[in-house]
Amino acid sequence: MTKQRKIKLGADLNINGSNMGLWRHADSVPGASVNFDFNKKLAIKAEEGKFDFLFIADGLYINEKTIPHFLNRFEPIAFLSALAAVTSNIGLVGTLSTSYSEPFTVARQFGTIDKISGGRAGWNIVTTPLAGTATNYSKQEHPEHDSRYKIAAEHLEVTRGLWDSWEDDAFIRDKESGVFFDPDKLHTLNHKGDFFSVKGPLNIARSPQGHPVIFQAGTSEVGKNFAALVADSIFTVHFDIASAQEYYRDIKTRVVSNGRSPDDVLIFPGITPIIGRTAEEAELRYQEYANLVTIDKALENLGRLFDHHDFSQYPLDETFPELGDLGGNSFQGSTSKIKEQARARNLTLRQVALWITIPRGEFVGTPVQIADSLQRWFENEAADGFVIFHGTVGGLDEFVDLVVPILQERGLYKTEYESTTLRGHLGLPIPANRYTLEKSAVTNTL
Amino acid sequence: MTKQRKIKLGADLNINGSNMGLWRHADSVPGASVNFDFNKKLAIKAEEGKFDFLFIADGLYINEKTIPHFLNRFEPIAFLSALAAVTSNIGLVGTLSTSYSEPFTVARQFGTIDKISGGRAGWNIVTTPLAGTATNYSKQEHPEHDSRYKIAAEHLEVTRGLWDSWEDDAFIRDKESGVFFDPDKLHTLNHKGDFFSVKGPLNIARSPQGHPVIFQAGTSEVGKNFAALVADSIFTVHFDIASAQEYYRDIKTRVVSNGRSPDDVLIFPGITPIIGRTAEEAELRYQEYANLVTIDKALENLGRLFDHHDFSQYPLDETFPELGDLGGNSFQGSTSKIKEQARARNLTLRQVALWITIPRGEFVGTPVQIADSLQRWFENEAADGFVIFHGTVGGLDEFVDLVVPILQERGLYKTEYESTTLRGHLGLPIPANRYTLEKSAVTNTL
Repeated sequence: MTKQRKIKLGADLNINGSNMGLWRHADSVPGASVNFDFNKKLAIKAEEGKFDFLFIADGLYINEKTIPHFLNRFEPIAFLSALAAVTSNIGLVGTLSTSYSEPFTVARQFGTIDKISGGRAGWNIVTTPLAGTATNYSKQEHPEHDSRYKIAAEHLEVTRGLWDSWEDDAFIRDKESGVFFDPDKLHTLNHKGDFFSVKGPLNIARSPQGHPVIFQAGTSEVGKNFAALVADSIFTVHFDIASAQEYYRDIKTRVVSNGRSPDDVLIFPGITPIIGRTAEEAELRYQEYANLVTIDKALENLGRLFDHHDFSQYPLDETFPELGDLGGNSFQGSTSKIKEQARARNLTLRQVALWITIPRGEFVGTPVQIADSLQRWFENEAADGFVIFHGTVGGLDEFVDLVVPILQERGLYKTEYESTTLRGHLGLPIPANRYTLEKSAVTNTL
Repeated sequence: MTKQRKIKLGADLNINGSNMGLWRHADSVPGASVNFDFNKKLAIKAEEGKFDFLFIADGLYINEKTIPHFLNRFEPIAFLSALAAVTSNIGLVGTLSTSYSEPFTVARQFGTIDKISGGRAGWNIVTTPLAGTATNYSKQEHPEHDSRYKIAAEHLEVTRGLWDSWEDDAFIRDKESGVFFDPDKLHTLNHKGDFFSVKGPLNIARSPQGHPVIFQAGTSEVGKNFAALVADSIFTVHFDIASAQEYYRDIKTRVVSNGRSPDDVLIFPGITPIIGRTAEEAELRYQEYANLVTIDKALENLGRLFDHHDFSQYPLDETFPELGDLGGNSFQGSTSKIKEQARARNLTLRQVALWITIPRGEFVGTPVQIADSLQRWFENEAADGFVIFHGTVGGLDEFVDLVVPILQERGLYKTEYESTTLRGHLGLPIPANRYTLEKSAVTNTL
């Protein structure tokens, strides 16, 4: 008897959501992005809704053109760890770049969150799309797109190796004899690769879930291959079910061709629900929120994906401009898709900017309509779960109060936490310590 | 009328304290160094005792010879941030190396803890004494001692510059007009120096205390000059009042010769109280704890200060060996002092190892005797406050319950928190934003 497959849910903690004008709404709380109490309440609400994890995005470069919700925000490691201390069940997933960090520090910081939370940490690996980041990190130049993924692969290999430094039963702590640990169960990595040389061992041991859960968000070819090879979970964005299905099937095929089970990698489209008591009310709310974004700001937002390209130089109501390779070294996957869709649907610049900035999606409607859409995506190879973004002020509260109970009634969603770790929530296996595995392989051969 | 000077107190959160055998005591809790609930209770106890701050040490390199309490412990940023979420008044001081970190990340991480805690963060700057650290960070070699301090000075200059990226009134957040911030109050650092090139701006604004408090622990000449130039507080270790006074006067003189007020830099000797109901009981407890450390382990501990030098090769009960320059590139200040004291007092290797490993100090006695010693140091230019280490299992609880009330009765120590920030607790000024200062200087000149 196999356990019934259930929808998994994450809550994005960027309270300005995916609408860059959300802060302008009459009900929005000024400064909420750097207000810990505000975010703590959201985290506790998500935990009340039995969400599997909180999700924290990040970026390492801003300038005067950057959209409001990226200008002033918490750094994910410190933010997640504070949230770990005030929650008990929910997973804690944070974004951290492999292009601008050291594996030893990353392994320690996520290792610490994982220990403090009793095995609830997740790392969303990004390679950093914005070239300006190099200027904040004393680098001559930003690594090019494919090279960033090579760095990411080696970074993760090292970090995982460090996480295995101590076998789970390494600490003996015998007070009488004074033996603190078994030296045969402490392992020095001695990694020497193309980008990193890291000896180890790490000065923190594994948590109950073994390793933090690895999230990725690849949309380019290289990115999708990387995700299919190493990720436990994938974050993605689609505005219709057909596009989500294509991505889902593509990734699962790549996962299987890497010799992994399709269930080893869960796919989470990010969605932005806008809830109304009637379909009409939801549509009116969508329009109300869409009107908070001016076309100038929408152009800036679009520009950011193309590494801060200035779109104000083009006519607004003519065909989307020809951009050549632009965007290829920043958000490669997203920008190709934008160019392709603009061409295929013959969109104007204004239409593209609004489509990107104020996503309409399939999740504007009554709680039942939204639950129907979630179920359709979940049951038709478009999603294993969803990351919920804030489409409206108070949107997470509404989702928990109004949509979650419908999913629970339909048996599509858990009514209680069934494990204590993020891997447990997501049904992912605990990775065995590589050294313990090696030893048991030797024993089996003898 | 000037406010009466009061003793300031910090609590070291390394629960294995300064005695490497403490974990072997019958009452010690196994695995406490990676048990968040255990540490949370200590933090809350320190807050009950109106402590000014918690203090978290750190290191970035271990091997099989490393003493137990460094092998498996929390990384300070993640640890402090979790503690920020479960405390309300106490300062949060963490150690982080300028030799193996990027200013942009450090500024964000301490900036985030400072915001989350409402202005309670402190950064204990270290330059990393252990050469092995380079092998964990993909570096060809560990920078030599004086070069490490040059890197530290520039790192801090950059980090402080990044903390000032946003003037305190930069965020307008006018919902009607859609103006989120005043671009004249966002500043790009554009730092280009010998070791770092960092453009900025930082993507988080200042906390109510302006900048986190800067701690340092310089004992070498270069280290003391650095501390006197940039630190707000200094952590130091002395086994008698004469040595503490010499250090105190030396530092305050250097501070004044840098054009600063002597009150701008507070000096905190670390002490390890062992409390008994009678002086005899305290002495017996000291012996009981001292006996938990074997001479082999004491030699390993001594060796660590000399960059993992193997002392087991020398005869134990003969004069301390001649070591030449050994230790000069690791813990330079401490190792010179050890060599000097060994020579001056004609100590054997055994005596030195035990003296370093099981500090006896002047703080073994009844609560009244310990309060007397604290008062004597505080009133005689040896200390502005103290960092309390765990000399015994439950030592912090005993200190709060038995010694703190005596200090309060004598009017030497506060009975309530008098501010909400760490700078407030320590009576340190809030650093003005450099750009706001520049503008007001221009206005005053016009």
